[in-house]
Amino acid sequence: MMKKIAIGQAGGPTAVLNESLAGFLDEIDQDVTGVLQGFQGLVEGQLIEINSSVRSHAKASRSASGAWLGAGRYTMSDARMAQAVENLKVAQIDTLVFIGGNGTMWTLRALSKMAAYMNVDLQVIGIPKTVDNDLAETDHAPGFGSAARYVAHATRDMSKDLEAMRNFEQVRIIETMGRNVGWLAAASGLLKVYENEGPHFICLPEQKHDAVGLVEGIRRAIKEYGFASVVVSEGVKLDGSHAVAKTVNGREVLGGVSEQLADLVEADLGVVARANILGMNQRASQLACSDQDRMEAYQAGMKAAELVRGDTSDVMVMFRRAAGAKYVYALDTVGLDRVVAGGERALPEWFQKAPEAYYNWLRPLVGDGSSTSAASAASRKCLSPPEDW
Amino acid sequence: MMKKIAIGQAGGPTAVLNESLAGFLDEIDQDVTGVLQGFQGLVEGQLIEINSSVRSHAKASRSASGAWLGAGRYTMSDARMAQAVENLKVAQIDTLVFIGGNGTMWTLRALSKMAAYMNVDLQVIGIPKTVDNDLAETDHAPGFGSAARYVAHATRDMSKDLEAMRNFEQVRIIETMGRNVGWLAAASGLLKVYENEGPHFICLPEQKHDAVGLVEGIRRAIKEYGFASVVVSEGVKLDGSHAVAKTVNGREVLGGVSEQLADLVEADLGVVARANILGMNQRASQLACSDQDRMEAYQAGMKAAELVRGDTSDVMVMFRRAAGAKYVYALDTVGLDRVVAGGERALPEWFQKAPEAYYNWLRPLVGDGSSTSAASAASRKCLSPPEDW
Repeated sequence: MMKKIAIGQAGGPTAVLNESLAGFLDEIDQDVTGVLQGFQGLVEGQLIEINSSVRSHAKASRSASGAWLGAGRYTMSDARMAQAVENLKVAQIDTLVFIGGNGTMWTLRALSKMAAYMNVDLQVIGIPKTVDNDLAETDHAPGFGSAARYVAHATRDMSKDLEAMRNFEQVRIIETMGRNVGWLAAASGLLKVYENEGPHFICLPEQKHDAVGLVEGIRRAIKEYGFASVVVSEGVKLDGSHAVAKTVNGREVLGGVSEQLADLVEADLGVVARANILGMNQRASQLACSDQDRMEAYQAGMKAAELVRGDTSDVMVMFRRAAGAKYVYALDTVGLDRVVAGGERALPEWFQKAPEAYYNWLRPLVGDGSSTSAASAASRKCLSPPEDW
Repeated sequence: MMKKIAIGQAGGPTAVLNESLAGFLDEIDQDVTGVLQGFQGLVEGQLIEINSSVRSHAKASRSASGAWLGAGRYTMSDARMAQAVENLKVAQIDTLVFIGGNGTMWTLRALSKMAAYMNVDLQVIGIPKTVDNDLAETDHAPGFGSAARYVAHATRDMSKDLEAMRNFEQVRIIETMGRNVGWLAAASGLLKVYENEGPHFICLPEQKHDAVGLVEGIRRAIKEYGFASVVVSEGVKLDGSHAVAKTVNGREVLGGVSEQLADLVEADLGVVARANILGMNQRASQLACSDQDRMEAYQAGMKAAELVRGDTSDVMVMFRRAAGAKYVYALDTVGLDRVVAGGERALPEWFQKAPEAYYNWLRPLVGDGSSTSAASAASRKCLSPPEDW
């Protein structure tokens, strides 16, 4: 008997979130149920039938930003979990697929446990998505490459702009997304070629930042180059204090450390310093989209569809990268238990200490170099990694 | 005898400012003097010889953001004007070319008058540049098409992102550049296809804005679409009060009206509203660059070089557009007197009242449609407009 399958999208969108939906729909040979507006829609029973007409609309939006089904943030309680499972049971859904980040993988795992507790058979599969790249176990996740491309280009271009304006304003503090990890902020140096070019400082949440020392460094950069271009991740805590944040609908939303630092610089150095929060465009911009990221997002969706045909459950699609200078990757799976246990994955120390190694790792994802995929774009099959990896 | 020529760049950079420099250098068949860091460099005598080696460096930077020679803001006084003319006289410069906006054209005209007063022969030519599109007399100016492309794409993408997130946050206020005119903010609607898509409101500095009415409109949009995407130009004054601004080095720098409006919305409607200032990337981004804009910036530089070979002075290169649906343009000149007298050019009422007419005018500059130039890109000659225009 054919399985009944539901798919949803959750969390903050990325530029390629709809590519994963399109890849999944292209690889699934049957009608599918769509969950509207993320886990809220699952709890409230907002389900639609993705028949061939709806499917063609969804696929036409594959290169649009946002989430075609709707996504967003929603706090799950045990009661809501039970309601969600109940809704799935009533709708006779056998398989639940969600595209999302850490919160989504945590919720999928919890739903699976709740289904078991309620004696409901449910296959659960996660498709990774994050601009922060903080998902554990996978080499990287769709959405990150495009956001990293945005940050790298914006930092290079805005630094050149500042350099030209240095008789009028001397310091620009560029604030990136990234939550508690520095992958995205660290990408800001990718296109820097010469010492005098920006960024002159990159502040990561993984590191301690002494405001006095940072301002003194900025003073020296101004003296040496005439200007200072500084990148701070939204999760950076100056002097080990709390991150700058406000609470929105019960969730801590980071942002504002760039203004805090710009104020300090203006007060201490008497120069003009401007904070520039890169904002939502860094995760939404289609113009900055990485072709490689776009393709991988699509492939992750295809891979999930392939898994649906089997019995595997409680797994997330993941990207495995072969060792070596050449970028060779394959799609594989990892247990949701391990993803959840891994927590928010920080930028490893070896990358923090050797930015060039990080840039070499990053370059193929940003998509300006050549890349090879074991799961080739031309192939409709998502190959598993070779035995010898 | 060969003229001695100096060229400089001034004001805030654009994504294509260095294209105009490259076009000028490609069309000039001799060494040229470069003025560093805008009018400040002219007053302080920061001149470099652009010999063939320097020229190749400058041309290699044609697609880089910023200003290769340096630009920036600098307040001119009569004493500084006289010093600048004195420096030009000592360096035996016959011709001064500057790439810039309204401030630059005003300064060029004043320098020309000062030179006449001091009995110094000086040919003066301006090359237009502005992201705000507030230069009078010309149909449009290089830099604007790319910034408009940035704003149009960012608004579409960020609105899609917000729509997907509407269970978590409902209102996004996107703040564009544009100083006191609405050309750039009005470009935000260019890619909107359906009524429910963003932007739902576009606030231009040319219009009066009643905060109570605007917040009520936002409330209705949330009710109808589930979210509201609002674009405000940095020069917008809510309730006819002053624009939100701070004074930087004696110059009024606009910015912050989006936060003012977001605070109002949160207080009055009890929803989550986020201000997002597009910031410096909108004028610097190479990824958002319009190919048409890039080409026209280059052509404007070529046209100036052509003018240098003649006796014309006190003019700005300008773009003339033929009537009709097809985009046909030619480069021409207009007196600096008229440009200065024209002041900051607002978005005309007929475009404010008929956005579709404005979008049709805008589309070829943003560069997604086809365009025809009397001064073809293939030709190295910048043709003057046909007689019958």
